[in-house]
Amino acid sequence: MPPRYLSFRCSVPWLILLLQALLLLRSFFGFPGVSDTYSSADSYPVFQDVNHMVIFGFGFFLMVLRRYGFSSTGFNFLLVVLGVQCSVLAEDLLVFLRGEQNEIGLGSLGKAFVSVTTVVISTGAVLGRANPLQLIVMTLVELIFFYVSRYTNETFLEVPESLAGMHVFLFGAYFGLALASRFPEPPPGLDKDRSSPKSELFSVLGTVFVWAFWPSFNSLLPFLETHKTRAVLNTYLALAVSAVAAFMLSALTSKDGKFRMAQIRGAVLAGGVTISYTAERIQHPWIAMILGLLASVITILGSHCVQRCFNPALKLQDTSGVHFTFGLPAVLGAVATVVLRVVEDGIDTRWNELSRLGYDAFVYIGAFCQTISTALIAGLITGFILNIKLLKAVHVSKYFDDQFYWEVSFKMISH
Amino acid sequence: MPPRYLSFRCSVPWLILLLQALLLLRSFFGFPGVSDTYSSADSYPVFQDVNHMVIFGFGFFLMVLRRYGFSSTGFNFLLVVLGVQCSVLAEDLLVFLRGEQNEIGLGSLGKAFVSVTTVVISTGAVLGRANPLQLIVMTLVELIFFYVSRYTNETFLEVPESLAGMHVFLFGAYFGLALASRFPEPPPGLDKDRSSPKSELFSVLGTVFVWAFWPSFNSLLPFLETHKTRAVLNTYLALAVSAVAAFMLSALTSKDGKFRMAQIRGAVLAGGVTISYTAERIQHPWIAMILGLLASVITILGSHCVQRCFNPALKLQDTSGVHFTFGLPAVLGAVATVVLRVVEDGIDTRWNELSRLGYDAFVYIGAFCQTISTALIAGLITGFILNIKLLKAVHVSKYFDDQFYWEVSFKMISH
Amino acid sequence: MPPRYLSFRCSVPWLILLLQALLLLRSFFGFPGVSDTYSSADSYPVFQDVNHMVIFGFGFFLMVLRRYGFSSTGFNFLLVVLGVQCSVLAEDLLVFLRGEQNEIGLGSLGKAFVSVTTVVISTGAVLGRANPLQLIVMTLVELIFFYVSRYTNETFLEVPESLAGMHVFLFGAYFGLALASRFPEPPPGLDKDRSSPKSELFSVLGTVFVWAFWPSFNSLLPFLETHKTRAVLNTYLALAVSAVAAFMLSALTSKDGKFRMAQIRGAVLAGGVTISYTAERIQHPWIAMILGLLASVITILGSHCVQRCFNPALKLQDTSGVHFTFGLPAVLGAVATVVLRVVEDGIDTRWNELSRLGYDAFVYIGAFCQTISTALIAGLITGFILNIKLLKAVHVSKYFDDQFYWEVSFKMISH
Repeated sequence: MPPRYLSFRCSVPWLILLLQALLLLRSFFGFPGVSDTYSSADSYPVFQDVNHMVIFGFGFFLMVLRRYGFSSTGFNFLLVVLGVQCSVLAEDLLVFLRGEQNEIGLGSLGKAFVSVTTVVISTGAVLGRANPLQLIVMTLVELIFFYVSRYTNETFLEVPESLAGMHVFLFGAYFGLALASRFPEPPPGLDKDRSSPKSELFSVLGTVFVWAFWPSFNSLLPFLETHKTRAVLNTYLALAVSAVAAFMLSALTSKDGKFRMAQIRGAVLAGGVTISYTAERIQHPWIAMILGLLASVITILGSHCVQRCFNPALKLQDTSGVHFTFGLPAVLGAVATVVLRVVEDGIDTRWNELSRLGYDAFVYIGAFCQTISTALIAGLITGFILNIKLLKAVHVSKYFDDQFYWEVSFKMISH
Repeated sequence: MPPRYLSFRCSVPWLILLLQALLLLRSFFGFPGVSDTYSSADSYPVFQDVNHMVIFGFGFFLMVLRRYGFSSTGFNFLLVVLGVQCSVLAEDLLVFLRGEQNEIGLGSLGKAFVSVTTVVISTGAVLGRANPLQLIVMTLVELIFFYVSRYTNETFLEVPESLAGMHVFLFGAYFGLALASRFPEPPPGLDKDRSSPKSELFSVLGTVFVWAFWPSFNSLLPFLETHKTRAVLNTYLALAVSAVAAFMLSALTSKDGKFRMAQIRGAVLAGGVTISYTAERIQHPWIAMILGLLASVITILGSHCVQRCFNPALKLQDTSGVHFTFGLPAVLGAVATVVLRVVEDGIDTRWNELSRLGYDAFVYIGAFCQTISTALIAGLITGFILNIKLLKAVHVSKYFDDQFYWEVSFKMISH
Repeated sequence: MPPRYLSFRCSVPWLILLLQALLLLRSFFGFPGVSDTYSSADSYPVFQDVNHMVIFGFGFFLMVLRRYGFSSTGFNFLLVVLGVQCSVLAEDLLVFLRGEQNEIGLGSLGKAFVSVTTVVISTGAVLGRANPLQLIVMTLVELIFFYVSRYTNETFLEVPESLAGMHVFLFGAYFGLALASRFPEPPPGLDKDRSSPKSELFSVLGTVFVWAFWPSFNSLLPFLETHKTRAVLNTYLALAVSAVAAFMLSALTSKDGKFRMAQIRGAVLAGGVTISYTAERIQHPWIAMILGLLASVITILGSHCVQRCFNPALKLQDTSGVHFTFGLPAVLGAVATVVLRVVEDGIDTRWNELSRLGYDAFVYIGAFCQTISTALIAGLITGFILNIKLLKAVHVSKYFDDQFYWEVSFKMISH
């Protein structure tokens, strides 16, 4: 038995146990008022949709590598259920810091699911190259940094909660990229970082799930009922247009006009990422549709630029392309937020209110810069932490392989 | 680079772009009142169910050919998102023609999804033999003809909207059949029009989805809450009985009593098709159950007759069997509508009202004949249009093959 | 044509036809008041969730054997749709026996789905070894015994309905085990009782579905809205903790610290089984979390003990491990019910009420013992019935093989 395996055995389970024990203790001591711990279940259907989207949709969306199916869904599942519990803890802490009343319910669970999307996206950037131990540590560190960044946005920059919460895609993508830059390159001859038709089909299945549930995701944070409805419809329109544009652009940019599934999978979702900041505020369907179109354009063009120029120059490996799937559309979305705010308010603003308008735009830009720089710095720091010897980084020859972590074939009946 | 590929490259993306630009312009100019553009989200759960059924369910239901998985789901997805936008436009036009008020909301999106089912079903008939360019043109032409046929039914024959909308299965199936008759036969030696166990399993997955969401589909159009409830329950009962009957009849009619997955997949859904016209009106569970049973019988027996006698005689190729899966049960459903109307009303009708009863039956039969003949003629016309040289029909040797349209293997990390 | 095939052909379809005809006749004669046959559709979303969980989730959860995919989902589907109709009949009978009013609606359909879970679980124990004829007979006999056991619990022991209904897991698992002990052993050299990575992936897909819909399942039977909400949240917490613990324990107990998918699939669901009895009553989140942890521990440790000691000693073959996946967690849940009842009530009980407390605990223990012994005896009896010559038991060499029941490859277009 090689010592590397031994080390996994020694560390992964105990880390999980320690974490789970802490979360249990928290839930034991953390509720002063018992009677109000369970809030109403009005939001159950939306919560279920987000639950499916994150666990099922993203789990299968990430199943692109032909020999890494078990790990893709399995580790995604583990990280989500761990991360959600940590997020509930962090949400409670935020509520406590603001001096509001504490409650556990589908509301706080739903918000925890939204936050945990950061972790899922970052995982995509190091897919197949990080071991479970590293992923669990990453989950913890990333969630702490994300909540710090969100708390800064909400408290010091006074960004509304529904907007601050939607920085998940931006944070997740750039955190993941910075993190991935600290991982050693796979050897050029390694043939395991390919997709196969079978793994692509499972990934398509996951993508369709994420696509279909995205309107629910974007309507979770807005508070008013009318805002929720607007969020659902605008998200749906943006997603529809970006899906159509994805096919168009993939055929236009590829050799001999064939479609490229890996690009299309990313680009059909781009509309949902871009619209996430503004879905509840947009009042004209055509704005949502234009945003969906631009999102798809930036994803497909970005995928060419990023994979040919940016990544090789920086020696970055971004396994499932989170930079162009989530990062670039999120940047576009943040820009769109500022532009829309200025244009919409600019129309019915008198001269003496212009300073306030400029202030709003300044705040949004500040929140964007703060989030992206926190993500990059935190990602680099986490990258250093993850590659210390204690965490037993995987050797490059074992990259992208289920058999390193899983007992694959299994006889059902023992004799 | 062969000129055929070049032609795809030149035409598919630009056609999509043109269409999408038109739809965008429409949404820019088409809304006179801004404040009422977003209606309420009461119907969100049902809308989501229909969304899943059409995009996810039918997408995987069609994944029967062993080398055509990407195209089956991918093109279905593209056609649905394009078709839904065109349908919303058509719905708006209908509303405008009737002089009602215009609004965009989940209601009109839901109805658009119902109409787009026509396209999905017709696609099944030419699965693997039409290229994306032909499919997109087909989507447009078919939706125009379907809305003309529906408008005729609603306006001149005064058929209720919920009944006229349910002609989707009838129209889609016979349009697809007429269309398929204009496509050249695949060469007899071609071995790609087979299912494999893997592709069948994905198809079963899609079938189970369609089956489970069908009650929501049938309850989308009825207006009253009690009618919706009845539609849900009757559809569920019909589906349950037709699922049971499908297994029974498949074992009875096959050699050595084995089950045949391709038949069962069609027959479990037959109950939903047949009941769709009358689900909201049937007041006794046993009628729904009998209809489900008859639907399954007609599908299984029909599949034998159609595949052995009808198709070879007419030189028809119906790739995924839409004739017996959707066409025949829809005819049965239309007949059942008339019979139920006559019987139910006949019981409590006096002599002087008999003329009105006859009139109702006459109208329903008229709507049925008008729909089916429009579908057949429109299908033949579309078939001629699709096979003109401009649209670059696929050569028969390239039928049923993903590699003709997709870049399949894909290295995730570029060096 | 060998006589064995002939016998299938002669018996399976006719048995199904007979059953379906009986159910149809029942629904024809069984409703005295027509106006009240369709109740409201308030519970439609929850009903849909349970529908998906049982048909889709369990259907794919059972798809573990590499050559038994069609049969796993197909027969599960058939048994569920047949069983649900039988259960509706039985529910009506129970309602009639209690002298309440009869109605058909989503409520009674939902309860029927809960009851039919018993059959699904028992099927798992004899997966691949029972032919469809045996499975249909098993469904009938098992449902009759289950309803007798439930009626005894509700009427003579006065256990609340929501608790009595949740004995499905206990009954299903031990019925299945007793049944499986009557089936002959597969020959040791048979290599078909293995999972393959592809079949495991489909099974993971089903597991994630079951996991995600479990909160809806546990909240179907409770009557009050607040109890439903508590059931949802407690179930979610228990499932989350048991999912985390499953990964931890699987790595701890396996050789060289690898994860074992078959164990994890069972253990992530264990929390849902254990909490099912008490989900509506638990008032502190940490209790739910502890129960989830214990459930996972008992499943993983149980899987080692059961597969190494218990099963070989009793010559039992439990194909998909229902004993440790559903049986042991259900026993834990039943024990937890008694303990929680005693502790919670014990705190605010005066001395003269202690006798009542003891009585309650005694009743719960009685219900548990009655259910488990009925299940074991009924399972043994059914095992004898199923292996009589009339039902043409499968020869051991044909175990675990789709080709024995299904026409697998299928040419789509006939020439």
